[in-house]
Amino acid sequence: MFMNKRLILKKRPIGFPDENTWALEEEAINNLNDGEVLVQQHYVSLDPAMRGWMNEGKSYIEPINLDDVMRAGSIGKVIKSNNHPKLNVGDCIAGWGGVQQYVVTEAQNWHKVDETLASMPLYLSTLGMTGMTAYFGILEVGKIKEGNVVLVSGAAGAVGSIVGQIAKIKGCTVIGIAGGKEKCDYLVDELGFDGSIDYKTENVMLSIREKCPKGIDVFFDNVGGDMLDAALVHIRKHARIVICGAISQYNNTARIKGPSNYLSLLVNRATMQGMVVFDYADRYAEAAKQMSYWIQQGKLKSKEDIYEGIENFQETYNRLFTGAKHGKLVLKVL
Amino acid sequence: MFMNKRLILKKRPIGFPDENTWALEEEAINNLNDGEVLVQQHYVSLDPAMRGWMNEGKSYIEPINLDDVMRAGSIGKVIKSNNHPKLNVGDCIAGWGGVQQYVVTEAQNWHKVDETLASMPLYLSTLGMTGMTAYFGILEVGKIKEGNVVLVSGAAGAVGSIVGQIAKIKGCTVIGIAGGKEKCDYLVDELGFDGSIDYKTENVMLSIREKCPKGIDVFFDNVGGDMLDAALVHIRKHARIVICGAISQYNNTARIKGPSNYLSLLVNRATMQGMVVFDYADRYAEAAKQMSYWIQQGKLKSKEDIYEGIENFQETYNRLFTGAKHGKLVLKVL
Repeated sequence: MFMNKRLILKKRPIGFPDENTWALEEEAINNLNDGEVLVQQHYVSLDPAMRGWMNEGKSYIEPINLDDVMRAGSIGKVIKSNNHPKLNVGDCIAGWGGVQQYVVTEAQNWHKVDETLASMPLYLSTLGMTGMTAYFGILEVGKIKEGNVVLVSGAAGAVGSIVGQIAKIKGCTVIGIAGGKEKCDYLVDELGFDGSIDYKTENVMLSIREKCPKGIDVFFDNVGGDMLDAALVHIRKHARIVICGAISQYNNTARIKGPSNYLSLLVNRATMQGMVVFDYADRYAEAAKQMSYWIQQGKLKSKEDIYEGIENFQETYNRLFTGAKHGKLVLKVL
Repeated sequence: MFMNKRLILKKRPIGFPDENTWALEEEAINNLNDGEVLVQQHYVSLDPAMRGWMNEGKSYIEPINLDDVMRAGSIGKVIKSNNHPKLNVGDCIAGWGGVQQYVVTEAQNWHKVDETLASMPLYLSTLGMTGMTAYFGILEVGKIKEGNVVLVSGAAGAVGSIVGQIAKIKGCTVIGIAGGKEKCDYLVDELGFDGSIDYKTENVMLSIREKCPKGIDVFFDNVGGDMLDAALVHIRKHARIVICGAISQYNNTARIKGPSNYLSLLVNRATMQGMVVFDYADRYAEAAKQMSYWIQQGKLKSKEDIYEGIENFQETYNRLFTGAKHGKLVLKVL
């Protein structure tokens, strides 16, 4: 028998989650029904989007119900199978297992991955939802072309760092906004960005003007708030703004700050478009193949920041919003 | 000799223009150079965009210089020609003559119109920039399809009333937002809109929900501010928001109010796009032909609200922003 530690959503947070938001519970795993597998989860993915899933009300996805396991992308191994038609013990599979150590499932929405080609955390980052978001966001919504000037906010983050590298591969000039010298140096020295802006020490508005003197063709926004407003001032004609997220606003208890400079869209005949990665589900395989190839070639670097222990979920989660992380945040739960 | 009364921009307004913004001057018309014509202007077009042209700084068009004639679209007749290669005395021509009674010009950016087909004011409204804005805005940026739910703000205004009628012609369900019962009745009873919302007496947020129960596919926004925010709450998946103007914000002395609900673009994978009609200049003829045809068929109604006297420019201009007008605002200057 297996004892499963699982993190339960107990209360919808207002602003930042606190000690009443989640509770860690233990349950015994029951016998498998016919066609089910038992998955031992190794890693769960931590994403800013989690904040939104905890809110009540309409969004691009159903909110997490109270008393349900906290939703999360995850990866693990099949350790038991009761006549599952496709999966065998030892298979490595990724899916939406949530923040828990074991899952009993028919695995309909899980997919098998090849652990010999990439490490498990990589399947949660560049080869997972994070990478898919970056890939389709910058290519399909941002519609980058060679020679474009691309500005990325949250550029040292999981999505932003991939966005910027793809834009470099495609021949764009790429400037990233990040917090702190270390992250900014990382963008330029390690990832090959053309420039960086440290929002903690620089005036973002002035630095964009200086580093994008011809203006911005594509702004990929993970942050919202003042950064979006500053970028709007500097867009070029027919610019595209990709609204991927607004991490600066997710824990607001007041009303979200809308972009005061949105009329720049009119002046510049520009487009601001939202994206949700799930819309590209039928093309995930194509994107994963392309990005694996870029990784092999050394053109695309993937960085995972791995923490351990399901007990440490909340502390790790907070790093999403404090910025105390380097790359894709992953928690080893078992 | 002709004495020309012309309105000069003397001071850039802060907020609403006042008595120091413009000055009416008189000048004697000089002899024509070779290749020039003298145009007697009959009507000038009044447009909310004028407010923006008076501001300093980068926009989609150069600001009007201080001490220059106030920019305006206009229509009039050639009353003198000094060997102009194409225009003859008696020709009716439309262009950017500004707020004045006579213009001496080589007429390079003017175009000849047929006064027997439509009245002069119509060439400043549905068959002029106003109509072009509506046509390309709703068709090319709004990308309406049969069955779409279309919401229009400033719906009884010059652009909005044409937008809504085109959407009806194309088989959409059309709801218009306007100020006052008379305008709202006009939308439904005269123009065939499916419904109206009176922002002066109704809660716009609640009324949109009630009148667009399935949500909005296209929002054509002339107003901005709270209306844009209310519309954002009710957009459907893959909705298009056309940013044509933001008349509620043009006279702000404080910072423009950005759309707090812009993250609805993300949730709904929606697009907010700005437009400037000049980008479609090479297709004006096509649009004018199509709209003339709709007018002939009785499917498209054009309403001009005509005032008289160049001395009354400022009072007439103010009607753009107070809403004390019915349809396209035109001033007869001679």
